[in-house]
Amino acid sequence: MKITQCDKRNLTMLTDLYQLTMINGYYQCGLSDRIAVFDLFYRGNGGYSYAVAAGLEQAVEYINNLHFSEEDLGYLRSLGIFPENFLNKLRNFRFTGDIKAVPEGTVIFPYEPILTVKAPIFEAQLIETALLTIINHQTLIATTAARLCACTNAQILEFGLRRAQGADAGVYGARAAYIGGCRSTSNVLAGQMFDIAVKGTHSHSWVMTFPTELEAFEKYAEIYPDVCLLLVDTYDTLKSGVPNAIKVFDKLKAAGHKPIGIRLDSGDLAYLSREARKMLDAAGHSDCLIFASNDIDENVLLALNSQDAKIDVYGIGTKLITSFSNASLGGVYKLCAIEENGALTAKIKVSDSPEKTTNPGVKKIVRIYRKGMAAADLMCLEEEQIDLSSPLTIFHPEQTYKRMTFTDYTVKELMVPVFEKGRQVYKLPSLREIGEYHDAAKAEFFPEYKRVVNTQYYKVDLSERLWNLKTELLRQAHDVG
Amino acid sequence: MKITQCDKRNLTMLTDLYQLTMINGYYQCGLSDRIAVFDLFYRGNGGYSYAVAAGLEQAVEYINNLHFSEEDLGYLRSLGIFPENFLNKLRNFRFTGDIKAVPEGTVIFPYEPILTVKAPIFEAQLIETALLTIINHQTLIATTAARLCACTNAQILEFGLRRAQGADAGVYGARAAYIGGCRSTSNVLAGQMFDIAVKGTHSHSWVMTFPTELEAFEKYAEIYPDVCLLLVDTYDTLKSGVPNAIKVFDKLKAAGHKPIGIRLDSGDLAYLSREARKMLDAAGHSDCLIFASNDIDENVLLALNSQDAKIDVYGIGTKLITSFSNASLGGVYKLCAIEENGALTAKIKVSDSPEKTTNPGVKKIVRIYRKGMAAADLMCLEEEQIDLSSPLTIFHPEQTYKRMTFTDYTVKELMVPVFEKGRQVYKLPSLREIGEYHDAAKAEFFPEYKRVVNTQYYKVDLSERLWNLKTELLRQAHDVG
Repeated sequence: MKITQCDKRNLTMLTDLYQLTMINGYYQCGLSDRIAVFDLFYRGNGGYSYAVAAGLEQAVEYINNLHFSEEDLGYLRSLGIFPENFLNKLRNFRFTGDIKAVPEGTVIFPYEPILTVKAPIFEAQLIETALLTIINHQTLIATTAARLCACTNAQILEFGLRRAQGADAGVYGARAAYIGGCRSTSNVLAGQMFDIAVKGTHSHSWVMTFPTELEAFEKYAEIYPDVCLLLVDTYDTLKSGVPNAIKVFDKLKAAGHKPIGIRLDSGDLAYLSREARKMLDAAGHSDCLIFASNDIDENVLLALNSQDAKIDVYGIGTKLITSFSNASLGGVYKLCAIEENGALTAKIKVSDSPEKTTNPGVKKIVRIYRKGMAAADLMCLEEEQIDLSSPLTIFHPEQTYKRMTFTDYTVKELMVPVFEKGRQVYKLPSLREIGEYHDAAKAEFFPEYKRVVNTQYYKVDLSERLWNLKTELLRQAHDVG
Repeated sequence: MKITQCDKRNLTMLTDLYQLTMINGYYQCGLSDRIAVFDLFYRGNGGYSYAVAAGLEQAVEYINNLHFSEEDLGYLRSLGIFPENFLNKLRNFRFTGDIKAVPEGTVIFPYEPILTVKAPIFEAQLIETALLTIINHQTLIATTAARLCACTNAQILEFGLRRAQGADAGVYGARAAYIGGCRSTSNVLAGQMFDIAVKGTHSHSWVMTFPTELEAFEKYAEIYPDVCLLLVDTYDTLKSGVPNAIKVFDKLKAAGHKPIGIRLDSGDLAYLSREARKMLDAAGHSDCLIFASNDIDENVLLALNSQDAKIDVYGIGTKLITSFSNASLGGVYKLCAIEENGALTAKIKVSDSPEKTTNPGVKKIVRIYRKGMAAADLMCLEEEQIDLSSPLTIFHPEQTYKRMTFTDYTVKELMVPVFEKGRQVYKLPSLREIGEYHDAAKAEFFPEYKRVVNTQYYKVDLSERLWNLKTELLRQAHDVG
């Protein structure tokens, strides 16, 4: 029944013009085959202490679909700035490089590469924009979903499609929300494409279409006896909605059905849910769930929790699907090494703003565990190996006197090969597998790293070799400057 | 050269599950053919005093493409909640109703219908979600673009693709930004699809690829002698970047070319732009433009203006393409009339929150002009006519003692027919025509209505008949309640 997960649109032209003007420039200068390495990472300036990587599947599809049609080349020719030799090179364009990435669902931190591209600069530069669009978007929404989930033990239903920033934002946003922990959606297309459980009930207009609320509920229950979820706030939640729902549930149960429950969509959700819970319990419907919605965000969840709201499932729309409180992850794609005289040379971008200075070289991320729990991350050069038989000392990259030594520890490398020489070598997991992977990854972190207020700082240090390399390159940049 | 503007994806399944459960419910109850009228409007609770309507073209394409494939029906069957008679009805689904809407680019206000659907409730309900997704998104971005444009006389280049919430958000966001007044983009696919001027230069990495900044600039000028725009802040804007750019521009001019100018991407843009302007002017390059970028939003534009920044073009990314300061328009789709005993009956949704109470009946929007300038809007019932030979008195819908009488005035109706009996009767204008229409529409408003801070309230009143109808329905609802 499930349609293919692949989005077959050709998004090759989904790039910034300057990528094309630059790669034409490199080509005309004879520099287009130089191997370059770029890291895609985020800086956390939006206030996200951690993020949940997402979007790799769509990035892989994008890379696999890359090609310029004659129509595309015709359009580029019409701009009047590109010579024919460049258009001919584009005609044969395909990706021939390597990509490694953290699997979707991985918990990552600022400055850690989510994805690293190693390819001729001609290719690596062209794909920058679309990779950022895809990974920035889905990682943002997966992270927002995870943060919302960290505020409650209730389940969260994603139902923001109508407020999404376009169709893709709705569909891939629902996918990303699933990864971050919101495991059902109202979005039928997302359900179909990614095999996400779809959920829904009825609107106030259903109730208003019938002469009475009770009649509207009875009709609904007749048609959906086994998935009966009733919206109870059209007239008066406690005086009319809940009592009417109980009458309908009584009949359903008598006929051998199991009603799902009720939904609150207005009013004081803490008070109404507690009262509705008592009424349902008193009527013998303690297995009926209470759904709640109405502009829910992290703060509302924390507030309702603190007042003992009896809510089993939250429906979250705008605040999740647009990541309203921080609508952009701000991920970037920065050169970390380039081929010089036949060898890769580490590069750094120095900025007056220390947070904009990059980490040089081809890197990997090592997560250090103590008793099965994540204790710190170490960014290393790719070729470094951790000797588990020796103690491991790490230090803060700025306040270097802050040191920590691990004796009884294990490590895991986070990045996996995705493309090698242009060929996909990574088998994409199903969304269900990604969700399970994320749950396991999240469980490795103590709650203090995950709470959304006053979050504990998680150590992300540089290996001594990487720190030395960075320090040396900073010194050289200063000497040049 | 231009590819078709139509997006041929079938987005029929881009809906919320509850739309399907409800229309199946109406069908099973024999109610699915009742004619219902829904208004799509926004309430302005995001702080937007006015909005710029956008997205109608994609809404029309969506309606024209509506159909369920066998794969879609198979997926819906797999959910186990829909009977075969309903799936058969979906198999033959097409839109047979009427749609009217304000043209894209129209300046609209809270509660004014952007679009009105009149159709069998089976159809009108199914299309709610996608219409909201499309119109909410593009209207949001067009409005943010218009607000940014209201802060400066400089041009604005949209270049946020990498921060957009997915591919659609990038492409249709660029389209919407064009409508709102940002008439160029870095997004190549948007340029190709909608014939928007594409602009771009090079990144810092281009400069860093060459031994010196001057060499990097010279190479770029050699390849792009007629579109030479140089990024001057890689090392030191005033000591290195601008002097090197001037050397290159001198040579270009001597060879008969006309350089475009320079781009600043960091530092104090007010100071740097003033100094760079002086240096360019002194070197005889007063026709060279200064571009600036770096996290620009409404506040930054106002601040730079107030300090006499010499910036001709702003590049705006994240803050425009995500509408960062308000990432959702919050548009809704509410029933305003339904067929009862063969006739349309006006409906109201009453809410404890006055701002959520709807305006009943099938309406139109009349804009009243005095000396060619928009003076107020009047929402009327569709069949009402304004007698221009008589004075027109309008009044505030809540503070009804606030009255205003027009003697010398003209009026214009804002909504146009788009579909009649399922057939498209509206010829979609080109994006260029939409832009011209928006410019003319915007020029009809005094600046005090458009400024982003301390905005003057623009009157949107109800006709006496509509006000009476609403008051009567509110009274009836109270009597029932």
